[in-house]
Amino acid sequence: MLMTQKLVITPWEIKGAVMGVDYEKLMKQFGADPLTPAVLDRLKKHTGDDLHVLLRRKFFVSHRDLSWVLDQYERGNKFYLYTGRGPSGPMHLGHLLPFTLCKWLQDKFGCELWLQISDDEKFFSKSDLSLESAQKWGQENILDIIALGFDPKKTKIFIDTKNAKTMYPQAVRVAKHLNLSTAKAVFGFTGETNVGLAFYTAMQSVLAFLPSVLAGKNVPCLVPLGLDQDPHFRVTRDIMPKLGYHKPAVLHCKFLSGLGEGGKMSASIPHSAIYLSDTPKQVEEKIKKHAFSGGQKTLEEQRKKGANPDIDVSYQWLQAFFEPDDDKIVQVYNDYGSGKMLTSELKQYLIEKVNAFLAHHQKEREKARSKVDKFLWID
Amino acid sequence: MLMTQKLVITPWEIKGAVMGVDYEKLMKQFGADPLTPAVLDRLKKHTGDDLHVLLRRKFFVSHRDLSWVLDQYERGNKFYLYTGRGPSGPMHLGHLLPFTLCKWLQDKFGCELWLQISDDEKFFSKSDLSLESAQKWGQENILDIIALGFDPKKTKIFIDTKNAKTMYPQAVRVAKHLNLSTAKAVFGFTGETNVGLAFYTAMQSVLAFLPSVLAGKNVPCLVPLGLDQDPHFRVTRDIMPKLGYHKPAVLHCKFLSGLGEGGKMSASIPHSAIYLSDTPKQVEEKIKKHAFSGGQKTLEEQRKKGANPDIDVSYQWLQAFFEPDDDKIVQVYNDYGSGKMLTSELKQYLIEKVNAFLAHHQKEREKARSKVDKFLWID
Repeated sequence: MLMTQKLVITPWEIKGAVMGVDYEKLMKQFGADPLTPAVLDRLKKHTGDDLHVLLRRKFFVSHRDLSWVLDQYERGNKFYLYTGRGPSGPMHLGHLLPFTLCKWLQDKFGCELWLQISDDEKFFSKSDLSLESAQKWGQENILDIIALGFDPKKTKIFIDTKNAKTMYPQAVRVAKHLNLSTAKAVFGFTGETNVGLAFYTAMQSVLAFLPSVLAGKNVPCLVPLGLDQDPHFRVTRDIMPKLGYHKPAVLHCKFLSGLGEGGKMSASIPHSAIYLSDTPKQVEEKIKKHAFSGGQKTLEEQRKKGANPDIDVSYQWLQAFFEPDDDKIVQVYNDYGSGKMLTSELKQYLIEKVNAFLAHHQKEREKARSKVDKFLWID
Repeated sequence: MLMTQKLVITPWEIKGAVMGVDYEKLMKQFGADPLTPAVLDRLKKHTGDDLHVLLRRKFFVSHRDLSWVLDQYERGNKFYLYTGRGPSGPMHLGHLLPFTLCKWLQDKFGCELWLQISDDEKFFSKSDLSLESAQKWGQENILDIIALGFDPKKTKIFIDTKNAKTMYPQAVRVAKHLNLSTAKAVFGFTGETNVGLAFYTAMQSVLAFLPSVLAGKNVPCLVPLGLDQDPHFRVTRDIMPKLGYHKPAVLHCKFLSGLGEGGKMSASIPHSAIYLSDTPKQVEEKIKKHAFSGGQKTLEEQRKKGANPDIDVSYQWLQAFFEPDDDKIVQVYNDYGSGKMLTSELKQYLIEKVNAFLAHHQKEREKARSKVDKFLWID
């Protein structure tokens, strides 16, 4: 559990505004290493061209043992990727970004992606979510993930409540090494926490070593994940050596800001997120109405003083992902900051980028329906 | 968790001597009902002849909702039996007795038996037990259970780490309703307890409602079990109505005394139990050397004063199970108590009974090897 001045972060709760998060401080609290230019350059040596925008722009911000994964890779010991999705509702843009990095890494390194759909976790952590709903959202979310273009021959999707035959006996091995004191300390559990959630970290650990179990040798694992999931993997990393496996390496990404002021995403602000199923019109309306602006109150003032891009959600979205061209994003920053570009123009710029992305995504998502079976793990 | 003056009872630990256990007091602490003559008579109405010796001699001592199960039965709503075995080693005579009652109930009521092999639980609760060993003991113990003659068409054996595909998604539904406070209060868990054991009660609950899930209607469940397992079922009984199922009825049996003084069974007294694989010679030696006697120190004294059968382990074993003939057991009690029967004679009596039982059992156990597949649940 992490608390910064404005922010509460656990794997089940992110409260407060995420735009002003002091990631440097978080990294130190976590004991994670920053993604330094040196590490990124080393990665670039293998990816052959420019780094993915999410790495270049530091949306992925820190790591554990990435250098070790590259050591192993350079010695011919290929790593696989492991990430997951807790299905409690429709996916929004923020959810998708880490998967787009996985897709890029799969393409560049030819590596496998092992993917967990933790319907059990979401059922445990959300009092009003039925197991059937979590399972249904799992099926829906899988379509969004497959739509990104993963290689079905190299991607294995596990659903906790469907693949328990494979997962539970492995989770059991982890669970023996995690006691209630540690679970409480790491996750801030209370007496009210249900025993399912206490056990769940063991389920989440499984794909960090299952490929090693099946291969009969240690296979390095790299986990791109949201910072909020780090507590699970701190536990996993402690336990893996006790079972004879390598610690999984971790690559942390930041939170994509919501549309509200300070990047706030909240269930009480239904328009704080753009869902992957949103129509072009909905996207336009949400961004126009709800994307918090760093611009001035009047057109005249904006022309005169310029905007503050650093607190502007539309700019943040372009910067993080939607405008991958480095020259263009610098120009947007300068034009918007100087008053040459108006808020309405910036928003239009983002609307077009997001709608182009979603148009492609939604088409691929439809195609994904017929491909699902190729991705699902069969026990 | 239960503590009486000499005894600590949890599902994972029975410390102290079990012969002097005040079952009346335990029953009150548990909130269970005694198996009164009225309830037993009602049972007898359906079983058609004499009650099983374990019921007649009150080795089964208390219950919850047995009358309700019989109400349902009389209305045509047949119950099934559910019991289990935690496989951490070879089975001894004490382990087998509750299963012999299940066999009798299956014969008398034509009911199904659903049986759980909780290899996960034993792995969680015993620090020095490997999962592979627990699984191996599971296979061994299943042979001993099948040897009792259960009907393969009416008996379904679940192994937690093998049948997780069926069990885990149902356990998840239970786990959401059990919080850490309750688990700690009921089982005496501490911070050192692993999260697997905290979750395990959810796995143990599954067979108390799975037949109802599969039938799409409520099927009454009767659970014959050792008193030490009651805490799990107190939790299960609390949760079942929240999931829309009946509470399972429970039938509690006492602990069979070990051979040591006061019926003590202990890992530090390797001969305190007779294992189902023991040879006639081992049985003879163990009973002769280790069965605590209520007799006098010398033959003369014994002839003069007689023995105290109530503290004599050999007598207890005959009384509980091995001499089902009521006239004969009364005669043994009187003869031994009066000094007419010597300790050596009493022990010889028991040795012959136990060896006859084991000779039959060991033969049936060999035959069971070829039948196992008929009993195992296929996910």
